[in-house]
Amino acid sequence: MTSQPTRPAAAGTAAGAADGPVPPAAPTRTSGRVVVLVSGAGTNLAALLDVHDDATWGGRVVGVVSDRSGAGGLSLARAAGVPTAVVAPADFADRPAWDAALAEAIAVFRPDVVVSAGFMRILGAPVLQRFADRVVNTHPALLPAFPGAHGVRDALAYGARVTGCTVHVVDAGVDTGPIVAQAAVAVLDGDDEETLHERIKVVERALLVEWVGRIARGGLRVDGRRVVVPAGG
Amino acid sequence: MTSQPTRPAAAGTAAGAADGPVPPAAPTRTSGRVVVLVSGAGTNLAALLDVHDDATWGGRVVGVVSDRSGAGGLSLARAAGVPTAVVAPADFADRPAWDAALAEAIAVFRPDVVVSAGFMRILGAPVLQRFADRVVNTHPALLPAFPGAHGVRDALAYGARVTGCTVHVVDAGVDTGPIVAQAAVAVLDGDDEETLHERIKVVERALLVEWVGRIARGGLRVDGRRVVVPAGG
Repeated sequence: MTSQPTRPAAAGTAAGAADGPVPPAAPTRTSGRVVVLVSGAGTNLAALLDVHDDATWGGRVVGVVSDRSGAGGLSLARAAGVPTAVVAPADFADRPAWDAALAEAIAVFRPDVVVSAGFMRILGAPVLQRFADRVVNTHPALLPAFPGAHGVRDALAYGARVTGCTVHVVDAGVDTGPIVAQAAVAVLDGDDEETLHERIKVVERALLVEWVGRIARGGLRVDGRRVVVPAGG
Repeated sequence: MTSQPTRPAAAGTAAGAADGPVPPAAPTRTSGRVVVLVSGAGTNLAALLDVHDDATWGGRVVGVVSDRSGAGGLSLARAAGVPTAVVAPADFADRPAWDAALAEAIAVFRPDVVVSAGFMRILGAPVLQRFADRVVNTHPALLPAFPGAHGVRDALAYGARVTGCTVHVVDAGVDTGPIVAQAAVAVLDGDDEETLHERIKVVERALLVEWVGRIARGGLRVDGRRVVVPAGG
């Protein structure tokens, strides 16, 4: 829990300070700027923060944005010296105003890639248009199977024997965007939602770290339903 | 191609001759009786015939039934000494009559498990009721994703990065039955429908052989969406 949520304006300042313009140097390559959206504890954020000091990863978490001032992910960010912003729906007159403010809060960090990692709200058009094909999400199932808020529970209820996780580009639908990467996880006899989700999360974190790094290094291009991540770095 | 399709009656006789009542012997266990339905070349049937002489597998293909007298799978069966039956829709007045004849043709082999392996017709109520929870099918995708006739093509078109195959109990829907087993197959850059399907088929054959054997040894019980295959043998 945190009692001092940073406001978007402050976050923007902090982000600018943390990573302002640098003079070009021949062998050095600026790391891809990664902004992470969180609503909860931020376990995926933690995995990204674990690697972002490693120059070979290619990315740098330059900002964390939450819809909840109490999100644990904000504390993780502050502990790692990463600027934060809170855009709480209650602070805005309506959904369009919140959508616009969220887009603005993200924009001040000038992201190359935006990671929705446990962000529990649908992203509106202002965010998706401004960062088209630059917002990625993780989902604890092999999409298009088991979309929505209960991907693990639904897979168990269906009796699936293989499920997994998906990193995908966010579009206007719910878990319908073009797929970046997927990994399979076997359902074991005796699994319940918690045991299965824990195993998926392990694979999901590794997949997310790998692919956010690849995107940070090489960029990302969407060609119809195909996602192309050029080899970079 | 074959010019002498066996009729159901003849097949029943042959099946009875091949595996009539045997006196019980203490350590010996009668192998599970497997009937395979084929419409085409019968590559899955071939995989089952490859192992059914191995007593540890637990099953024995005691009959092969096709809707097409020219199905290559019939030739495979005959070459292996397995009786066959052809129930061609053109030989019946209407769909209900064909459904009933198909159920009868299967029944004469007294199957413990019926495998729909590349059988290109929907099984009607007479078959599903008579062999409830004893008919299994393979599908070249991780159901419930990409059901229907083009599971591989649809997965590619969606941009899936992981697909696979499913062995499931057949119910009245199209690829909706309770899942017995699944295996994942990665989609590779540059895959087309043919290359991906070939890799899936390799995994699918192994999965089918493994699970038909397990079912032949231990039986199969459906509990809601859960399939329980007791350890047998």
